[in-house]
Order: sequence, then structure tokens, then C-alpha cells
Amino acid sequence: MEIRYKIWLERKREVIAGNGKINLLKTIDELGSIQKAAEKMGLSYRHAWGMIQKMERRAGFKIVKTTIGGKEGGGALLTSQGEKLVQGYLTFRDNLDKFIKNKFKQEFKGKFKKLRGVGEGK
Amino acid sequence: MEIRYKIWLERKREVIAGNGKINLLKTIDELGSIQKAAEKMGLSYRHAWGMIQKMERRAGFKIVKTTIGGKEGGGALLTSQGEKLVQGYLTFRDNLDKFIKNKFKQEFKGKFKKLRGVGEGK
Repeated sequence: MEIRYKIWLERKREVIAGNGKINLLKTIDELGSIQKAAEKMGLSYRHAWGMIQKMERRAGFKIVKTTIGGKEGGGALLTSQGEKLVQGYLTFRDNLDKFIKNKFKQEFKGKFKKLRGVGEGK
Repeated sequence: MEIRYKIWLERKREVIAGNGKINLLKTIDELGSIQKAAEKMGLSYRHAWGMIQKMERRAGFKIVKTTIGGKEGGGALLTSQGEKLVQGYLTFRDNLDKFIKNKFKQEFKGKFKKLRGVGEGK
């Protein structure tokens, strides 16, 4: 038996981001470009841009800032709050994953047949 | 901003139970009857019975045992493994909830506007 979980951030009952959007932001930060991040993740630029705008509207603050060259050609960076959001989410998720693995063993180990461990949900 | 989460149990990539099914099992245990538990939860007996059978098939062990009187009229109890499953899940969930509330404050508090806390996902 395995425990699965899913986490996401909300504000005013609207989803801001879960794993997928946080990964997009992290990739933008690594590659310095929305275009390159979108390509790497198999998204169209338009779709990635739409995701960012929706996240920012729902979060209530700017997450990505584009640099000179325009939205298509220029570079992109995370804002200070965007970086805190991504880092906070990833640190939170790592800690949660460790906690869940340990607690699951404590509560379930040896009590049922075929206990196999823990994995993150889809 | 709030963090939301959802947990569920799986075996062999099939969902055994999340909050809804665990609550059904807990209610059966409290009321000693599938019929009464189903009524309380606004489910048909047939639907509740189907949920139990699916859970047992996927978990690989009996979770509910019915007592004399037949499936419709008789009482119902959780098996020993069924009790461990429900108690383990609930204890796990309570600990997780506390952990998430604390960690979320640590990682996010004061970093963004309108931080409101933590809530369990739908």
C-alpha cells in the first residue's frame, strides 16, 4: 500500500499553482527565458504566458519580469516575490515528502500486506 | 495565500481510499450498519456497498464484515485490518495537518501579502 498526495497554493479559493506551474517558474528561472522554458516543457509560448498571467492575477503580485527585447525575444527572470514563492513551495514540498514517508511507515508499516512505500501523486 | 492538500491510499496504482471512503468506513464503525452509514452520508445502500467492495478488492483484504441478518438487515463491523486502515489514515492525516500548518507558516509567513493559513483540499 502507498500513500499519495497532492499540494497546491490557493488564494480566495482560486488555485495559484501546484507542481506543474511551479516547475514552469523554476525552469524560467534556470533558463532565463519564458520561450526556452516553454519549449523544454512542451508548452507553447502562448500557453506558458497565459499560465503566468493567471498565476500573477490570482496571487496578487508579479511573479515573472521580462527584460528588454519584448515578451518573445527578451529574457525573463523571477521577481523577488516570485523567487520566494518557488523556493518556499519547493522547500515546503521536500519537507512534506520526508515527513510523509516517515509517518506513513510509522502508521502503516507491518500492519498490512504488500506495503510498498510512498510516492507523490500525479 | 493558503496551502491545500489531498491524500489518498493506493495499491498497484489503483486508488483504495481518500477522505470520502475513509469517512464511510468510520461511520459504519460508529453506527454498526452499512445501511445507517449510507443514509447518514446521503448515499444509496447499493452505492456504499459497491464502494466497500471496490476498496477491499484494491486493498487486497477484507475491510468490513457483516453480521447475521444479511447484507441489508444485519449489522456491520470493521475487520481488524479495516480498523487499522481507518485509524492509521486518520492519525496520519491529523499529524500531516499539524505539520503542514506549521511548515507553511515557516516557509510562507510574512513573505507575501494576505497569508491566511491552511485548509484541507476538496
